[in-house]
Amino acid sequence: MIGAGFMGAAHSQGWRVAPRFFDLPLAPEMSVLVGRDAARTRAAADTWGWAESSTDWREVLERDDIDVVDIVTPGDSHAEIAIAALAAGKHVLCEKPLANTVDEARRMAEAAASAQRYGIRSMVGFTYRRLPATTFARDLIATGRLGDIRQVRAEYLQDWLSDADAPLTWRLQKDRAGSGSLGDIGAHAVDITEFMTGLRVTRVAGLLETIVSERPVLGSASGLSGSAGAGRGAVTVDDLALFTGRLENGALASFEASRFRLGRKNALRVEISGSLGSLSFDLESPNELQFYDATLPATEQGFRRILVTEPEHPYVGAWWPTGHMLGYEHGFSHQAKDFVEAVAADEDPRPSFADGLHVQEVLDAVARSSDADGVWTGVEPSLAPSTLSDRAYAAS
Amino acid sequence: MIGAGFMGAAHSQGWRVAPRFFDLPLAPEMSVLVGRDAARTRAAADTWGWAESSTDWREVLERDDIDVVDIVTPGDSHAEIAIAALAAGKHVLCEKPLANTVDEARRMAEAAASAQRYGIRSMVGFTYRRLPATTFARDLIATGRLGDIRQVRAEYLQDWLSDADAPLTWRLQKDRAGSGSLGDIGAHAVDITEFMTGLRVTRVAGLLETIVSERPVLGSASGLSGSAGAGRGAVTVDDLALFTGRLENGALASFEASRFRLGRKNALRVEISGSLGSLSFDLESPNELQFYDATLPATEQGFRRILVTEPEHPYVGAWWPTGHMLGYEHGFSHQAKDFVEAVAADEDPRPSFADGLHVQEVLDAVARSSDADGVWTGVEPSLAPSTLSDRAYAAS
Amino acid sequence: MIGAGFMGAAHSQGWRVAPRFFDLPLAPEMSVLVGRDAARTRAAADTWGWAESSTDWREVLERDDIDVVDIVTPGDSHAEIAIAALAAGKHVLCEKPLANTVDEARRMAEAAASAQRYGIRSMVGFTYRRLPATTFARDLIATGRLGDIRQVRAEYLQDWLSDADAPLTWRLQKDRAGSGSLGDIGAHAVDITEFMTGLRVTRVAGLLETIVSERPVLGSASGLSGSAGAGRGAVTVDDLALFTGRLENGALASFEASRFRLGRKNALRVEISGSLGSLSFDLESPNELQFYDATLPATEQGFRRILVTEPEHPYVGAWWPTGHMLGYEHGFSHQAKDFVEAVAADEDPRPSFADGLHVQEVLDAVARSSDADGVWTGVEPSLAPSTLSDRAYAAS
Amino acid sequence: MIGAGFMGAAHSQGWRVAPRFFDLPLAPEMSVLVGRDAARTRAAADTWGWAESSTDWREVLERDDIDVVDIVTPGDSHAEIAIAALAAGKHVLCEKPLANTVDEARRMAEAAASAQRYGIRSMVGFTYRRLPATTFARDLIATGRLGDIRQVRAEYLQDWLSDADAPLTWRLQKDRAGSGSLGDIGAHAVDITEFMTGLRVTRVAGLLETIVSERPVLGSASGLSGSAGAGRGAVTVDDLALFTGRLENGALASFEASRFRLGRKNALRVEISGSLGSLSFDLESPNELQFYDATLPATEQGFRRILVTEPEHPYVGAWWPTGHMLGYEHGFSHQAKDFVEAVAADEDPRPSFADGLHVQEVLDAVARSSDADGVWTGVEPSLAPSTLSDRAYAAS
Repeated sequence: MIGAGFMGAAHSQGWRVAPRFFDLPLAPEMSVLVGRDAARTRAAADTWGWAESSTDWREVLERDDIDVVDIVTPGDSHAEIAIAALAAGKHVLCEKPLANTVDEARRMAEAAASAQRYGIRSMVGFTYRRLPATTFARDLIATGRLGDIRQVRAEYLQDWLSDADAPLTWRLQKDRAGSGSLGDIGAHAVDITEFMTGLRVTRVAGLLETIVSERPVLGSASGLSGSAGAGRGAVTVDDLALFTGRLENGALASFEASRFRLGRKNALRVEISGSLGSLSFDLESPNELQFYDATLPATEQGFRRILVTEPEHPYVGAWWPTGHMLGYEHGFSHQAKDFVEAVAADEDPRPSFADGLHVQEVLDAVARSSDADGVWTGVEPSLAPSTLSDRAYAAS
Repeated sequence: MIGAGFMGAAHSQGWRVAPRFFDLPLAPEMSVLVGRDAARTRAAADTWGWAESSTDWREVLERDDIDVVDIVTPGDSHAEIAIAALAAGKHVLCEKPLANTVDEARRMAEAAASAQRYGIRSMVGFTYRRLPATTFARDLIATGRLGDIRQVRAEYLQDWLSDADAPLTWRLQKDRAGSGSLGDIGAHAVDITEFMTGLRVTRVAGLLETIVSERPVLGSASGLSGSAGAGRGAVTVDDLALFTGRLENGALASFEASRFRLGRKNALRVEISGSLGSLSFDLESPNELQFYDATLPATEQGFRRILVTEPEHPYVGAWWPTGHMLGYEHGFSHQAKDFVEAVAADEDPRPSFADGLHVQEVLDAVARSSDADGVWTGVEPSLAPSTLSDRAYAAS
Repeated sequence: MIGAGFMGAAHSQGWRVAPRFFDLPLAPEMSVLVGRDAARTRAAADTWGWAESSTDWREVLERDDIDVVDIVTPGDSHAEIAIAALAAGKHVLCEKPLANTVDEARRMAEAAASAQRYGIRSMVGFTYRRLPATTFARDLIATGRLGDIRQVRAEYLQDWLSDADAPLTWRLQKDRAGSGSLGDIGAHAVDITEFMTGLRVTRVAGLLETIVSERPVLGSASGLSGSAGAGRGAVTVDDLALFTGRLENGALASFEASRFRLGRKNALRVEISGSLGSLSFDLESPNELQFYDATLPATEQGFRRILVTEPEHPYVGAWWPTGHMLGYEHGFSHQAKDFVEAVAADEDPRPSFADGLHVQEVLDAVARSSDADGVWTGVEPSLAPSTLSDRAYAAS
Repeated sequence: MIGAGFMGAAHSQGWRVAPRFFDLPLAPEMSVLVGRDAARTRAAADTWGWAESSTDWREVLERDDIDVVDIVTPGDSHAEIAIAALAAGKHVLCEKPLANTVDEARRMAEAAASAQRYGIRSMVGFTYRRLPATTFARDLIATGRLGDIRQVRAEYLQDWLSDADAPLTWRLQKDRAGSGSLGDIGAHAVDITEFMTGLRVTRVAGLLETIVSERPVLGSASGLSGSAGAGRGAVTVDDLALFTGRLENGALASFEASRFRLGRKNALRVEISGSLGSLSFDLESPNELQFYDATLPATEQGFRRILVTEPEHPYVGAWWPTGHMLGYEHGFSHQAKDFVEAVAADEDPRPSFADGLHVQEVLDAVARSSDADGVWTGVEPSLAPSTLSDRAYAAS
């Protein structure tokens, strides 16, 4: 695993726990943790249970005893590492967003397509796909329970920037973070919509907004670009994104990614309305799915709060009895499981790098629409169709 | 209408509004309002829309142009007025509780049974039966959607006595009010349970509790018994009742009536669990019914929030389009409608005085159980079976 | 009252009930109901309690014993009637939308401004402003409890067009209805946002969509334009509107008006996020307000479900005790009360015709943006500033 | 760890994960798993990550390299193993219920008290105490935010016995399971009440009920007592317990433990009403706490849904950012952490064996009340007061 920040803890938990609950075809070994700072990486390896640590990811890629590379570094290094890892014949799991730019993401997807021909697998880490409730939602839709998809509302609401005196960090500067709310949480809203509905976003219209444009700079060591030492510095990424997307079947999806919805902490919410039914999900109640079945008698229709904790629900049977709740990090165990199973079965796991690229293309189109006074803007496929097998590029 | 207090406003609204929305077979005329104080009764009659006012209910009972008597006085006068009204050949609607004692209620039920032979109708005013959601719940159960009724939880939670310095009023003194939380709100919990399930409570075990036993006496004019002028006086009724009831089919129902559940304002809640499904209702969300259908596939089961606002739902078609909510006083319009229709159809409306008597018998058994250290105590029918037709005494 | 359709029943209930619960300075008399068909209008007058009926509104406007005209006809006749009524010196209450076009609305607002100089009052009927919860929300915001308004989400979700085989009616044809979901329910979303925040929408970007564009035509008598007898006819209004608005303080509001959100029956929902707190309202739970207070300790923050049923809450004291719910039509009683009080106090009630015009201008800008590929489009004031006193045009 | 069933997986996850997220003063090593069947225990040890396996717990107790014994066997063997482990000088964590009988539990508490004098620690595994939300609730109450505790409602609702054709298992037979719903889930309801309020139950009145008294016997190998081979056998434990408890401060708590509340999967719910506020918790939404603060202005009071996911909340800081949810097994990590910290600090962890004994005494009193027609029955302390330090027996 390359990267020793917050997501490293989550991925480590996934690798550690998955084989304890799922009967995996291959046994993952937590071999090497790679970070920048030797001492801190060593300590993290101890805490998280990696056998070794290193500060040189290129060296690690050369080792024969390494089969899988899990990339959890910041987005601006994903392309370089992932492409090298694929070239070295390693299966690659890369945390989302796939990259900070469409161009990087495209090169990664091309590398993945090339590697795929040699049986090398790659996957991007949209873990919210792997909750029992979201996967079950996808299944209900795939079997036609909603009929034709008519409308989608997808929002990812947080509030951690509400305090205008929260300090400026590198996450709020474009040259470091690449994007703000759009890339960080808007990406999840787009991916979960495409995952659940099986439909791609083809055109968008929207705007990116920076609600609080200056924030206090703390200390001299922050190394923030554009800040004048003490005082306040400029926020150069969006903290609110509002956009509408046209899905490939013609349906409209409206999206919001905000870090200013005071009181909403981690509310990735999706409501999908079809001709026969509706589904509603909220990540703040992650074990529940609301299902409205319009084929029932009119007097008996209503949103049904399904506790997605039955052994027959996706992933659940491996865990606890009915009614016992799963949490945030279970998605990482499920991701580890699905990745290992795909590798063992010689199959391509989803979401593929091409899927991750597509999400970046959508976000890029949003930014272009925002720059163009909100006009409808096409999502431009940047991969040559011949690059990919049809299957890998179809909506998951 | 006899009585000019709070419930008078609600009943007046029922009589006023019902004929505007329902196509009634007879046209109610709001003729005379009877109260104690001439001036205040005159003012109330003007406000509420009664043509005349009076302070002599006996005189009014003698009038030939009066067909219906609606009694909304305090419970200790119900028996005298209702029995006289029935004897005078008037149809009688009597607010709950039917009476303050079982003996009075029994005499009223006997009078109602006698009058019934001459086509005189009587009804007791448990209006919470007449909400679309509660009536629809009854219908679902009656058609077998819950299967065998296994368990009931019924609670009526309020908090207006939570402040220990809330003053002593006549409602908190036994000689005036008859009962406390048990008779006031526990009666509703019992009635709604019997109404929805169609099952009588046959035995009970429980306790009555007075959580705050002394309260400030305000002023000298309060006329409260047992108070020593200024200072504090004794609360002589229960402010919490906890009891368990055995239903006639063997199922158990647990009841709570509390005025100390801080934060719960008017929470009459019933959850009924059967072998095939469950239902849950909360008066704080009066237009909703939660329905759990265990005959669906295991992965799709869940409590379904039905908005009981479809034209096909009981009473709803007369009002507004789907999704437009009804409020508290609509129950009184429905009560007026049902009463008028029963009179016109020459049928006995429900809940009958015998139903009201039965509720009093249940509450009486709770009090006896509480006095006897909580032992199980039978609900003793006080009416001779021959007094009543089978139909009138069967659970509604 | 002119107009004898659905809204006539609601307005009649308001006029009938308001004086029974509120101590009004003037006593409304329900004099004449005006409709097109003599027999049906006569029957409606009887049902709703109007003393007389008429089919000639011009004649009624000439009567000296008429002081107030309440207009509940379809939108295309509002302008003609309202302007004539104001010219005749009658106070006018006009149901929303103020008119079907900006031009008509502008002429109405001009007429209202002229009449105002002679003490003639006018008001447009956005009754959702007059619920205890929405008014209390406005009060909390006005006293600064949310701090600076940062973001608004306002949506009005219904599902009655979800069935693609629901028949074509005049409401789905532009020449008759003027607008679809935008004018019918989107107008409410805009008005409630401006009412609660006290901020005007100044620019918009969005799109209007017709999800189901052809529907079955029933019978030959439908008289629908463009339909070819049997078969299917074209839906010529939007059934979904998605737009973003810039408020005058710079905050962004995102709006949705949909008749295809399956399972949502009458969900006018507003969530307002400020720098110090948030508020959330849902018309499907009309007696509740969710309030998030970010000035509390971090560990104790959360959305608080306030039952807006305390006697200290707006309008509530006149009705029932704490915890007893109000319904849809109570807004019409509150509207009647507020209108009568304003007339008696010689004050201009709100929302004024100028407020109603402004909403039309917002909707018009949305339509223009939709026609222009979604670009940001200014809301153009059509009234000369000199026409209006500042007070009447400031956000309410 | 002794025991290789369902709870073994949960405890193993706790021991495995706790040191990865918490900075523990001692490093737990997962040494030996003890079970009955050698092959299955070996396999479980591999799956769960125990270094060795064994079928002889007595032998393991003699090993010097074992410091802690974690007992997750069925309740009827707890006493023998725990007393032996304490005698061998091992710190003991014992899964709830402490034992199947009061007598066994008393002997365990006595052994724990003796061992304590030598620095040997013991704890019983009521893990629901160790959720952030329940611990935070305890903290709020301990600091007086609810004022005087007035009333408690505690219920643990499941539905897995609703199907009358669910087969008879040993868990439904008294000689094997000791108790039914009362001991299994009612114990949690009692413990969480005492934990949150800091108040002991002193007297109870209630009943135990078996709703479905005969169930199908599957196969000949079931070895169930009293079953006649094929056909149906008797359920000899309660499947519903309803009881009321008097707390030491005089407040009343009403309890329900049911396996027949259809639609409720794992609903351990507690609502505590005080003189200044209320709290409500539901294990089906384990990361939330509802708090009602009656010291706020009347118009602003309401139940506040606190997401107990802030870094300042108990246990949360070690996990994920705000708004990321924890699940069922996190309680076991917290339990492992608290146990290790207490051992390292030379302190007695809570809940102690004396706490566990007390819960058993409460349940025993319920059973005696049920046998005595529901009369109020004292909870009889079975430990000599001198056996225990005051601190260990005070409510936690």
